[in-house]
Amino acid sequence: MSDRISDIGEFGIIGRINDLLKKEGFLSERVTLGIGDDTASFLPRPGFELLVTCDTLVEGRHYLPESISFFDLGRRAMVQNISDIGAMGGRPLYALISLGLKPEIGVRDIEEMYRGFLRELNSLEAAIIGGNLTRTANGLFIDITLIGEVEQGMAVHRSGAKPGDCILVSGFPGQSAAGLHLLLQGQNNPRILSHPLVRRYNTPSHRALLGRAIGQSGLATAMIDISDGFLGDLGHICTESRVGAELFKQKLPLSRDLLRAAAELHRDPYDLFFGASDDYELIITCQPQNASLLQAVSKEHCPDPLREVGRINDLPGGITLQSDTDGDRPLVSSGWDHFR
Amino acid sequence: MSDRISDIGEFGIIGRINDLLKKEGFLSERVTLGIGDDTASFLPRPGFELLVTCDTLVEGRHYLPESISFFDLGRRAMVQNISDIGAMGGRPLYALISLGLKPEIGVRDIEEMYRGFLRELNSLEAAIIGGNLTRTANGLFIDITLIGEVEQGMAVHRSGAKPGDCILVSGFPGQSAAGLHLLLQGQNNPRILSHPLVRRYNTPSHRALLGRAIGQSGLATAMIDISDGFLGDLGHICTESRVGAELFKQKLPLSRDLLRAAAELHRDPYDLFFGASDDYELIITCQPQNASLLQAVSKEHCPDPLREVGRINDLPGGITLQSDTDGDRPLVSSGWDHFR
Repeated sequence: MSDRISDIGEFGIIGRINDLLKKEGFLSERVTLGIGDDTASFLPRPGFELLVTCDTLVEGRHYLPESISFFDLGRRAMVQNISDIGAMGGRPLYALISLGLKPEIGVRDIEEMYRGFLRELNSLEAAIIGGNLTRTANGLFIDITLIGEVEQGMAVHRSGAKPGDCILVSGFPGQSAAGLHLLLQGQNNPRILSHPLVRRYNTPSHRALLGRAIGQSGLATAMIDISDGFLGDLGHICTESRVGAELFKQKLPLSRDLLRAAAELHRDPYDLFFGASDDYELIITCQPQNASLLQAVSKEHCPDPLREVGRINDLPGGITLQSDTDGDRPLVSSGWDHFR
Repeated sequence: MSDRISDIGEFGIIGRINDLLKKEGFLSERVTLGIGDDTASFLPRPGFELLVTCDTLVEGRHYLPESISFFDLGRRAMVQNISDIGAMGGRPLYALISLGLKPEIGVRDIEEMYRGFLRELNSLEAAIIGGNLTRTANGLFIDITLIGEVEQGMAVHRSGAKPGDCILVSGFPGQSAAGLHLLLQGQNNPRILSHPLVRRYNTPSHRALLGRAIGQSGLATAMIDISDGFLGDLGHICTESRVGAELFKQKLPLSRDLLRAAAELHRDPYDLFFGASDDYELIITCQPQNASLLQAVSKEHCPDPLREVGRINDLPGGITLQSDTDGDRPLVSSGWDHFR
């Protein structure tokens, strides 16, 4: 059996991927044409809007090849797209996978990457229906387009937050950033890959089922997933909704793991919480009287509670941190920027 | 005004692209959410299947950066996707643009690339509704996902060719390959970029309107666009339809430009015609009694006639070249393979 892509060629590897998807992937009966033609095709469901998103992982930029398996890389690339569909209140349906590959990559590595994709898609009854393979000279890239659906008019946008709304957050933001810093600092430590926060960085979870349930409740005024960091993504809600926000320092969910990692890294845990971190948690806004209802919805889908961490106000663009002990101070909303 | 992406950052360039699309792009009223949220969304039309395809251009691999403008690069990247939708008999609707960029690229270069995308999309009333920007260390890539629609059950697949069917081809395949060879050979000649075949390689046309008309006629049994080369793509029809093909050497459309270029390049013009070449012409199969009807359909959309060049037979996998002067010989179906 051949071992490298260059041994079996483009059509060889497409055949192997196709076989794997037929055996191990979810097959959707609304797909009228899968891999192997000029396009794929499917029948949309009446009464639903379609959601489309794409996201890319670039070797050396979004992941360190020596620190992650191909299986986990596949999971991670898919999670970031599933997370976007979930943050609209939608359900993922179909993925297109565009890969830039070096010919010396092993065929089994590619198969493992596809198993990583399927690990995330199968349980959601979502299917890979197409894609593209191309050769790169310099490092791998994975670009995924994910198509989802949501009942017409039920998508939760970033732009709906109103002054007076509560700000809720799922889980414990900042853990992914802490994991990345631990990984970079501990590159010579073989056990670093099993650190819980490094695992969180390498193989994050999504909150798509929670996002879907929140969307279905009709109670959220805005929602976003955290991929640019808590402050960056709350900033996106503020910009798109033309509002500002106040955060309550003592209510921010800093996990024990994060506090421990911050001490080890000699960093302020709040910097890790607020800064660039792709945690794929959700930030949600709602009218105050609906906060406890959304927290009850969350309990069914998420082991960690949905926490109320602040309020939306009518001061566009500003985010303020209120503290019982230190008074108020403005925060600078600076999400992850690829080009600075 | 800033000049490089690194000067205005990721959100700066997203803002500039968004402004450009609002001013210069087609706006579809079925798009319920455009750029600026976790996903884009649109309302599909009842009675239509959706078609999805993606294709990538990688710097140095699919194009030579010093030989093509950003505007033409945008056109070319979009044409290869439009061509795929057209080859199904569909109509392009929505594009997602995923770019891997170096921070030193000029903002105006990116705007020119988007103008190239729009040059191809606007006349088809198709819109850019989303995408992703990421940073690469090593060269640009453009990955486009294009979504189209076709009346339910009217898509023309690769798999429908039957023994006895005619094989038709639009235009003059091989010209793009000749253009690429001329470009590679004439890199020190500044006038080489205005050679008609080099123009064909750098800024190919698509036959999407022809493909759509052929699909609507209901007369084609199979259709494919030529992106792997004539023989490679006819080979895809044969494989998917489990048939073989005979080609008539004296009927193959070799353009005068191709013959002249072949002489200049000291190459067999038939090698250029058959081999890897992304001409974005269409190969169509149909029952013999429908060939002239399809040729009449073609006249309305295409200056060059649709030529009958062979027959489908029941010998799966084999493609034979029949010649009045040299007898028959088997051809090896070897399309463009990125990894060999």
